[in-house]
Amino acid sequence: MSGRQLHLNLFVYPGGHHEAAWRYHGSDPDRLLDIRFYQDLARRAEAATFDGVFFADGPSLADNVRYASRFRLEPFTWLSAVAAVTERIGLIATASTTYTEPYNLARLFASLDHLSGGRAGWNIVTTGAPQAAQNFGLEAHPAHAERYDRAREFVDVVTKLWDSWEDEALVADQKTGLFADTDRIHTVDHEGRHLKVCGPLNTPRTPQGRPVYVQAGSSEDGRAFAARYGEAVFTAHQTLASGQEFYADLKSRALAHGRDPAQLLVLPGISPFIASTEAEARALHAEFDELTQPAYSLQLLHRLLGVRFTEEQLDGPVPRALIETGGERGNGSRFQLVLDIIEREQPTVRQLLHRLAGARGHRVVTGTPEQVADQIQEWFEHGAADGFNIMPPWLPGGFDTFADEVVPILRARGLFRTAYTGTTLRDHYGLPRPASSYTHTKEHA
Amino acid sequence: MSGRQLHLNLFVYPGGHHEAAWRYHGSDPDRLLDIRFYQDLARRAEAATFDGVFFADGPSLADNVRYASRFRLEPFTWLSAVAAVTERIGLIATASTTYTEPYNLARLFASLDHLSGGRAGWNIVTTGAPQAAQNFGLEAHPAHAERYDRAREFVDVVTKLWDSWEDEALVADQKTGLFADTDRIHTVDHEGRHLKVCGPLNTPRTPQGRPVYVQAGSSEDGRAFAARYGEAVFTAHQTLASGQEFYADLKSRALAHGRDPAQLLVLPGISPFIASTEAEARALHAEFDELTQPAYSLQLLHRLLGVRFTEEQLDGPVPRALIETGGERGNGSRFQLVLDIIEREQPTVRQLLHRLAGARGHRVVTGTPEQVADQIQEWFEHGAADGFNIMPPWLPGGFDTFADEVVPILRARGLFRTAYTGTTLRDHYGLPRPASSYTHTKEHA
Repeated sequence: MSGRQLHLNLFVYPGGHHEAAWRYHGSDPDRLLDIRFYQDLARRAEAATFDGVFFADGPSLADNVRYASRFRLEPFTWLSAVAAVTERIGLIATASTTYTEPYNLARLFASLDHLSGGRAGWNIVTTGAPQAAQNFGLEAHPAHAERYDRAREFVDVVTKLWDSWEDEALVADQKTGLFADTDRIHTVDHEGRHLKVCGPLNTPRTPQGRPVYVQAGSSEDGRAFAARYGEAVFTAHQTLASGQEFYADLKSRALAHGRDPAQLLVLPGISPFIASTEAEARALHAEFDELTQPAYSLQLLHRLLGVRFTEEQLDGPVPRALIETGGERGNGSRFQLVLDIIEREQPTVRQLLHRLAGARGHRVVTGTPEQVADQIQEWFEHGAADGFNIMPPWLPGGFDTFADEVVPILRARGLFRTAYTGTTLRDHYGLPRPASSYTHTKEHA
Repeated sequence: MSGRQLHLNLFVYPGGHHEAAWRYHGSDPDRLLDIRFYQDLARRAEAATFDGVFFADGPSLADNVRYASRFRLEPFTWLSAVAAVTERIGLIATASTTYTEPYNLARLFASLDHLSGGRAGWNIVTTGAPQAAQNFGLEAHPAHAERYDRAREFVDVVTKLWDSWEDEALVADQKTGLFADTDRIHTVDHEGRHLKVCGPLNTPRTPQGRPVYVQAGSSEDGRAFAARYGEAVFTAHQTLASGQEFYADLKSRALAHGRDPAQLLVLPGISPFIASTEAEARALHAEFDELTQPAYSLQLLHRLLGVRFTEEQLDGPVPRALIETGGERGNGSRFQLVLDIIEREQPTVRQLLHRLAGARGHRVVTGTPEQVADQIQEWFEHGAADGFNIMPPWLPGGFDTFADEVVPILRARGLFRTAYTGTTLRDHYGLPRPASSYTHTKEHA
């Protein structure tokens, strides 16, 4: 097998990505808090030679948990337990730069990378949900630009912490009694606008040096951030053209930073409804839509657009004027994406809700295994993707179908690995292991 | 088997408790960052029907890592990976109320309790090492009383967060579409001197309701805190009389709070050197002492006493006057313990260093399996202990000897379980599962 290869992550939400997943007869809501459910999923994804499993997260409770399985699984604990029963698959944890302390977060990732043998990835987010602020004693959720300002400083600090032990610092020579060469362990002495951290980290350098830096914002700030720090970017696009624009933009921004664009993977989300015929796939999709609850969907739309619609408005057109008076949105790029759908498709409010129910703005594809593989190949070969975050509508069944029926097609077409060639997430993604930035700051005899 | 039963935890430090453990020929320093090493240990402790494994922690790097394996394993990740390969043993994580955010910490414990089926314990510490402050942007480490003031508020807040979902809040009725009964999910609306947290937690209530509250300070503030919140207390005593005084004091303080004293377990630390004869055990102990390095030990003594001795002073008496001029100590009760040793034993500085090398002030017992069992039984039956934190001088060998040779004696004497009778750490400790404090605050139709 040669040539450029797809990168695939399994995106994990309790129950699955469709908002009504937990109500589907193929789901078992009693297992949503059972770690074995997620361990099994990761094992299946590993059997399908996926690059990684990807855990969403946020430090607050979604207001719509009344209608859907929108509680949160804390990613570090959950992924550590997944690491223990897998060997190769990457483990990507979402964590906020706004609502964590850099020293504590650096420790969690360093440990996850140690205990997994180098499989940790960090989905760097600034947290969109404003209600998080009140769980951390803040008067208000910091504004978008302010969050990104802290995020940049935060990533610089934790990078220094992960680098603070050079690779050679751990000596452990029983004879001489030298456990660690403290000349190779460095304070980071950071003092910036948002953070003050002395260091060093209290753990030796990890198998990957640092977790893989994954980024998931597609706003202007998000793109600038990804171009500078991101090694994989998770993004939402509804059309090939939008995906291509984003892909070209990100790669050229990376180049402008003096980076190798191949070391910034663009991975759009895709939520597939798969069946033997296109008609059956559409029927499956429709079955999910029928299980949706307007009260939930309207809350989601409020979060995406900043506007509250009522159940009375469901079967009328989306009132464009109303949207334009909306307040600040948690996610600028997702707002634009929804506006684009409205312009392109002129849906009723209910149709728009169904359109978003599958993956909150990520692309939903409905079809046969070949059709889904075709879609993936088209984006991959036409400059819109280096791979995908697969977001099954429900779990585990929605993933099993993809693994059993789409993966073999992608492999037969030479687009996806049949076996792992490395052991770390950096290996899977084709990313180098970074050297510690302190390694050459001192001469050693 | 009937009658009062011992409770035993395995206390885990990388390499073991003796400061020179990693240099001992029975240690393998290459495995100290290998999760399988700790998973194996926990499996052995589970085979020995121990109540729990106990992970020390602190959010900074010890200055003496040059001479000993004093890096840190982040407890939540590490214990989650241990949970994945065990079924019954309790998982006790040390975590600081001074250097964490209550919402984040509440999530980590809730997830650990969920994924382990109810085996989480929280060793509540305020963090003794002053250098932690500079990793968290503080000008100075808060003073002892201030740390305890925050600790009390912190525990009140996280308790409310763990209670914020009533047990019945998770409904997950596929037919009606009600996932969570939001009338049974409560904001905690805390606003105090140190913390402001709205809540609710973003995870359903856990198998144990809350982790077991373990506490490890024995100062006046520590005792008051333990009497109010502690369900198990980890403490250091060199003599039976000191252990008895502490035990009686803690139990009467618990009673004064209207608590059942049986629900506050007192578990002193004990570090055993075990061999077939007393002479061999002493020789083993001496072998460890010979591997100690004065540069390390003097740093430890500085931490415990606030005084720096020099290598020139090693073979002279401990200059009492010098100690009395020491600055603020991280640990008031440990300071007193060392002073007591000096008064009782009149050691040279080197003898004092060896005295502390095994377990930093915890009791070291040296003898045959019967002698060690006798010591345990004596304290257990004479009002000094409900059980012990076993702190093997080195790992895994130092624990294997205890499990293989001391545990059978304790079992034969009817003092220790031969099989688990429950599944959670609360079950093992004989503690009830607390009801959510919100359960009766509302009438439900």
